[in-house]
Order: sequence, then structure tokens, then C-alpha cells
Amino acid sequence: MTKYKAVVEYDGAKYHGWQWQPSLPTIQGALEHALAQICREPIRVHGAGRTDAGVHSLGQVAHFESTWSHSSDELQRACNALLPPDIVVRELKPVRADFHARHSAIAKLYTYRILNRSLRSCFWRGYAWHVKEPLDIHSMNEAARRIRGAHDFAAFGAPTDGTESTVRHITHAFWELHEDSGLIQFAIQGSGFLRYMVRSLVGTMVMVGRAKISPEHFLSILDSCDRSKSGPAAPPHGLYLTKVDYPDFFDEPIDLSACEQDIR
Amino acid sequence: MTKYKAVVEYDGAKYHGWQWQPSLPTIQGALEHALAQICREPIRVHGAGRTDAGVHSLGQVAHFESTWSHSSDELQRACNALLPPDIVVRELKPVRADFHARHSAIAKLYTYRILNRSLRSCFWRGYAWHVKEPLDIHSMNEAARRIRGAHDFAAFGAPTDGTESTVRHITHAFWELHEDSGLIQFAIQGSGFLRYMVRSLVGTMVMVGRAKISPEHFLSILDSCDRSKSGPAAPPHGLYLTKVDYPDFFDEPIDLSACEQDIR
Repeated sequence: MTKYKAVVEYDGAKYHGWQWQPSLPTIQGALEHALAQICREPIRVHGAGRTDAGVHSLGQVAHFESTWSHSSDELQRACNALLPPDIVVRELKPVRADFHARHSAIAKLYTYRILNRSLRSCFWRGYAWHVKEPLDIHSMNEAARRIRGAHDFAAFGAPTDGTESTVRHITHAFWELHEDSGLIQFAIQGSGFLRYMVRSLVGTMVMVGRAKISPEHFLSILDSCDRSKSGPAAPPHGLYLTKVDYPDFFDEPIDLSACEQDIR
Repeated sequence: MTKYKAVVEYDGAKYHGWQWQPSLPTIQGALEHALAQICREPIRVHGAGRTDAGVHSLGQVAHFESTWSHSSDELQRACNALLPPDIVVRELKPVRADFHARHSAIAKLYTYRILNRSLRSCFWRGYAWHVKEPLDIHSMNEAARRIRGAHDFAAFGAPTDGTESTVRHITHAFWELHEDSGLIQFAIQGSGFLRYMVRSLVGTMVMVGRAKISPEHFLSILDSCDRSKSGPAAPPHGLYLTKVDYPDFFDEPIDLSACEQDIR
């Protein structure tokens, strides 16, 4: 058995999120289905994070184990030939046996895209939130500044995976206007996120941008730790899981000669 | 009756092209259907060019006449509320009675997008041609240089609208790598185009980029005026009708007081 690390891009529009669900299309389900056909064995895929229905990915990371006896390049090509057009395995390589897509992750980067103009767009309709009212990006960055560092984010989401703590450490949170596309993009990086946290933060920061609440009010919502005080969550189709970081030692090349000998 | 000029953006994926066809979804059909509901009268829409099935638009121009008695802003908003999400009226304003979307046009700009890498993309799959083999953009620009000026393009397309001449005047033709998206984009501007001309030029220039034929061979195809000598047409989903230019005097404000008095 060899452990593999995969970087997976997907358009989440047609999926009920990452996590496998009986008789519903999910990203995990599509990957496991493709891998089982290629490797001719049942394969369980473990993701770095469970993206919700409609959320996109540019860099979701997953691991799985297989007795696949050919190269990882061949496995990647076979996956991309078999997977539907809205899922792509961007990278695939063998990884140390102690690697775990979720437990080994040290940081995740999410991006959120907003089309901020009165006119809707044909081409961004599924890929950015259309906010018609003018947004003050300066005051949104005032709010974003307040969430950097370690905070209790109970006002913006619920803990996942049975952990109790709602404290998360945010290393980067910044709104930026992309001149080329005309989009406003939020980038947020942290050691981990609560469920709905990014969309809830974005929804509340958009209230700041529309001058419905002040950056100080935003801070008081954060401090309240009260889920009922935050704004409505931003829609999923603007959100992208963009990058998952791991300690450098997982990038070192793996000696597969031992397990290859086992197989041949 | 007032004449209106509309700039129309559309995602062509689900349409059988611009031109109205019985019981098939077309852009012209969708616009006429929406306008008839809003203006409560049958309306015939005339486009600057007939884009083929699957081709997109960022700046198709159309004109139509209506007895609409409210502002053109209100007409635009009503259109965008009623039109499907893959069609947007970007601009709408009254125009001189002698304006004609096709006959008054002095130049059209098309762009063609290519994703040039081995890995496919979830997000560009409907919006750029995926060419896996490495392309030499320098030799493609060698070919593009040869089509600037007035040439007989019979090798690359058929005349439309009953005209006999296959001579067209190309003012701009250039391939460019867009660093942000990683796409290679072709921009071509001319007074007019033959049917399939841009896709046929792109398909043949990609053969140059793959070193299947030389820029000199490309020139000999152009000179042959023989449709059977050009390469296969590039797929429609990479092509965008990007801009249509008109003489400046059509941009002058229109005095609507006369016809408004007629209506009220």
C-alpha cells in the first residue's frame, strides 16, 4: 500500500459539497468512484476540509491509500480522464505514511469573490457573489484587520469534527480590488476554520461595506461570541478553498522501491 | 417609434447562435421574447453579426424600434430582470433613426482564448479551447502578422448575407499571453469577417504554433484562396465577439421630445 497526496480543483455548483452522502453527488464520492474503477479496489479519500454545497476549490488536498502499481503520473492521468469535467486532480504524488490531509495541515487559504456593480454578469454568475450596492472596501478592510490573530469566532460559525473550541488563529485577512476582472476579492488564511465561518464573516463585512454597520459594530459582534448577532452568510458560489499548507518535510521525495518490490 | 441601440453580453453555451430559428433557443429569439413582453408589441431585433452556436459575446450590438414610453434605463433594467442569467444587456440607449447595427458598423473585434497546458481546467472548460501540446506564440504571431491589411480570405471562410467578395481588411491581429489567467489570447479586429473566418484562422494558426506547418505555409494557404487547405476550425467556446465600433456621430445625444410628445 502506498499513500498518495492529491490536490483537487473543482467547480462546486453541481455538488452537495465535499463529503460523501448516500445517493447525492459529492466531490469525495466522485473521486472515490473514479479511483475504485482505476485501481480496482475500494478506496477511501480523506479531504483537508469539508467544503459546503456549491463551494469551489482551487487547491483542496486529499489523501488515500492504494496498491496501484504504476506511476503516480499515470494514476493522475487516469483520474482526469475518468472524472467529470468539473473536477480535476491538479497534482498527485506519493507521500509519507504519516501524512494526513486534515491533521497534518498547518494553514488553509480561502478566497471569496464579489462582483460589485449594478449590472449582473453572464460569466461571473456562478463564480462570484453579485452585490449591487456600492461597497466601501476601505471600511471592509478595517473590519478584516480586527479578525487577524487568535479570536473566539463563535459569532461566525460552529466547530466541526467534535472539537469544542471556537478559537481560531487568522494569519491573513484582506480585501483587494482586482483591476483586470473588476472583482473585489477577500483572502483569508488561518490554521483552521469553523463551519460557515468564512461566508459568515464575508456576509457581515459586506454589511460594513454597505455602511449598514460600522467596523466597531463588527468588532462588537466578534466579541459577543453570539451566532445570532452576525449577518447572513454570503452565498457559497463566491467561495474558493484555494490552498492548504503542510510542513515542508512532507514534500521530501518518497522511496517507493520497498513497496514496489512487494507488488511486482 | 424610437430606435434603440443595445450592447449585449452572452454566454453562448446553451444557444444555437445569435440568429432566430423556429423552436430553438437563440440569443435574438430570447431578446425579442423579452422585449415583446416588456414593450407589449412585437419587436424585431437586428444584430451587428450572427455569432454561431456556442460563441460568446462581450459586446454584440443590436438595434430595434419600439413605442416604449419610459426611459431607456427602465427598459434596460426590465430586460435584465426578464432575460435568462446567461444574457445581459450591458448598455441601452436611444439612437439616431439612421443607425443600423450591421450596416453602420465600421469595425468588429473578436477575441479567442486558449488554455495551453497539459492539465484541463474546471473553470475555463466552457470559456477557452484546451490545447495540450505546447504552442509557440512567437510563430503564431509570425502568421498573424501576415493577415493584417486587406486580403482575400476565401481559404478561411464563406461570405455571408449574399455578398460575393471574400476580401476583408484586418487592422489588428495579435496573440498575447495573459500572465494572470495563464491563457493565450488572440485579438483580431477588422471591418468585417467571413463566416467561420476567426475560428478557421485560429485553428490554422494553432497548427503553426504546434510546428505542424510553418508561418510560410500558413501564408501559402491564405494565398491559395482554397477552403480545403486551411486547418480545422477552432471550437466555438473559445470565441468572443468583444466589441463593435461605429462612427462617433451615432454617440451624440438624441432629442426624444418630438417622439415622446407623439406617444403621450
